[in-house]
Amino acid sequence: MATHDFFMRRALELAMNGTGLVSPNPLVGALIVKNDEIIAEGWHHAYGMPHAERDAISKCEGVDLTDAILYVNLEPCSHHGKQPPCTDAIIENKFKTVVIASNDPNPNVSGGGISILREAGIEVIKGVMKSESDWLNRFFFKHITSGSPYVILKAGQTADGFTALENGESKWITSLGSRTAAHKLRAQVDAVMVGTNTVEKDNPELTVRHVEGRNPWRIVLDKNLKLEKALKIFQTDDAFRTIICCSMEMSVTDKAAELRDMGNEILVSNIDESDKLDIKNVFEQLERQYKIASVLVEGGATLHSTILEKGLADELQLFIAPKFFGRGISTFGQVKVQSVEEAPTFKLKQLKQIEDDIHAIYVK
Amino acid sequence: MATHDFFMRRALELAMNGTGLVSPNPLVGALIVKNDEIIAEGWHHAYGMPHAERDAISKCEGVDLTDAILYVNLEPCSHHGKQPPCTDAIIENKFKTVVIASNDPNPNVSGGGISILREAGIEVIKGVMKSESDWLNRFFFKHITSGSPYVILKAGQTADGFTALENGESKWITSLGSRTAAHKLRAQVDAVMVGTNTVEKDNPELTVRHVEGRNPWRIVLDKNLKLEKALKIFQTDDAFRTIICCSMEMSVTDKAAELRDMGNEILVSNIDESDKLDIKNVFEQLERQYKIASVLVEGGATLHSTILEKGLADELQLFIAPKFFGRGISTFGQVKVQSVEEAPTFKLKQLKQIEDDIHAIYVK
Repeated sequence: MATHDFFMRRALELAMNGTGLVSPNPLVGALIVKNDEIIAEGWHHAYGMPHAERDAISKCEGVDLTDAILYVNLEPCSHHGKQPPCTDAIIENKFKTVVIASNDPNPNVSGGGISILREAGIEVIKGVMKSESDWLNRFFFKHITSGSPYVILKAGQTADGFTALENGESKWITSLGSRTAAHKLRAQVDAVMVGTNTVEKDNPELTVRHVEGRNPWRIVLDKNLKLEKALKIFQTDDAFRTIICCSMEMSVTDKAAELRDMGNEILVSNIDESDKLDIKNVFEQLERQYKIASVLVEGGATLHSTILEKGLADELQLFIAPKFFGRGISTFGQVKVQSVEEAPTFKLKQLKQIEDDIHAIYVK
Repeated sequence: MATHDFFMRRALELAMNGTGLVSPNPLVGALIVKNDEIIAEGWHHAYGMPHAERDAISKCEGVDLTDAILYVNLEPCSHHGKQPPCTDAIIENKFKTVVIASNDPNPNVSGGGISILREAGIEVIKGVMKSESDWLNRFFFKHITSGSPYVILKAGQTADGFTALENGESKWITSLGSRTAAHKLRAQVDAVMVGTNTVEKDNPELTVRHVEGRNPWRIVLDKNLKLEKALKIFQTDDAFRTIICCSMEMSVTDKAAELRDMGNEILVSNIDESDKLDIKNVFEQLERQYKIASVLVEGGATLHSTILEKGLADELQLFIAPKFFGRGISTFGQVKVQSVEEAPTFKLKQLKQIEDDIHAIYVK
């Protein structure tokens, strides 16, 4: 098992080369091992490109693979999609063994790929480094099984839980290291989302800076389209695109037409029982219409609170600075809890120090 | 140096055997190495007992130490106190080398011990594992150099910074593991301190449970002696002793006399500019009258806020649960900050995961 872990760890590293490029497909890496040596590596480079298994196999032309092992972090596909089934290529090349980390959760694939390989006489070992692999593809798993994107709430706050002073001042609470990590996170997700107040107050660009990486969709919730067109977030080009979520009535106004002319998308959302945009409906539409598998919500407090209270947050990423405000704007200040027992509670998945900040990742 | 580090690490382990027993003396461990082997170990067992160096040397009767190395985490004393100077014993035994971690900050000793050894022809290597050793004896260093105890603010809070709901409910926010770690901390300090409101609301015992260890002094701030005598904290015996801090006027009342009769100590404090007990004066008196070198402040928000604002906190220990209240009683809710820049800011010294809680130790 130690050897299997070793090679699968490398497959996961390879998979990460596709970060930000393959969505809504999963991140997949593959490698081929013969006589305990890696003879080929591959990964899924980008959406629409060959799968990792075929990428690795393509580098073995003329090589006898009958005693080779294929490592791949996701169960090979057995259906015809944009690409021919990987199981065909594996069987044709008569691999001795296939080692897999995660089962494919896709209802069209799950278990099917493994059965087909076994029926062809190929040994299949599954579950190697499964939890690491499942974590790597958590966006894909959520979107494929639920029809809704994976939702991450991100906040930079003081150690006593404030994202700003009472007067609104918030620059800079967290360290440069934390802010860089937050930009890296933007480059990993399909979309970044903010509420009306945050755009009004901060006039953010919501682009990827400090690190290399492609820009995610920018999503603004603005039910009544009250935000000024001149705000940075509405200035678009090929690399910076924005989806504005509003009510049905507003979507047919001149303001909506103007925003569309500027290159923005308008998404009409249901209205919920509190007369606000129905955030669950927004998420579902983002997945359905735009194939958005992951959304990073960057606040403010109202939006964070709504998503937390409705139980729609899959993950929280808190950057906690070693500062204390005493009072101010609370990260989740609109949440109402009646007893300790009913307070939203998460699991601490990862804990890291960035300069003097804490970077904590919580999951459901 | 690697070898020196190895043996010094062991000396630090030995020193820790005195935890809770040696104050206001420092924690000191010593070991004697001959031909790369440890031939004797010692430590300062308790206040008034022999020093670590003498404890180790006493185990070497009849052994030639002329080629031996003595490792000790604190510069050996050179003055007559409760014990004869350790430098005498080291010189008498003609050690070849003495390896030291921390310099003694005691104005009567600092540098003196090292000079005396060097003048006697003994090689002295200092600064080995210095930062670990300085950290281990941070209580001692603070009290000896400042005449005030080392002050730790401790809080168990949600990830959004609340120690209780608005209705006061606070049981239990943190995990059993965190609460056990907090009891361990109590066993390490000389005193535990709480404000009036916390005693009124929680009726705490402030004893060491969940772990083995001696009980620290319990200190209650109650300027007007308004707390009921029947509260648990005022029930004393040899193992559970309480110091009540109040105003001069209250110290001569019948209530004060009754509390004294129950075995409690009454400490009269100055009154500060906000007509509250002058907390700085309280700390200084605790050091002077009771030789208290470390105080663990367990809240509530008013006391925590006062100490934080006055810059009197040497360290903060936060146990952060993966829960979110949205609103409630903030850990430092009375602190007033006008700009991000002037917010109290600390360094993150240690970061650990305890179950799903974060245990963060911040220092000045």
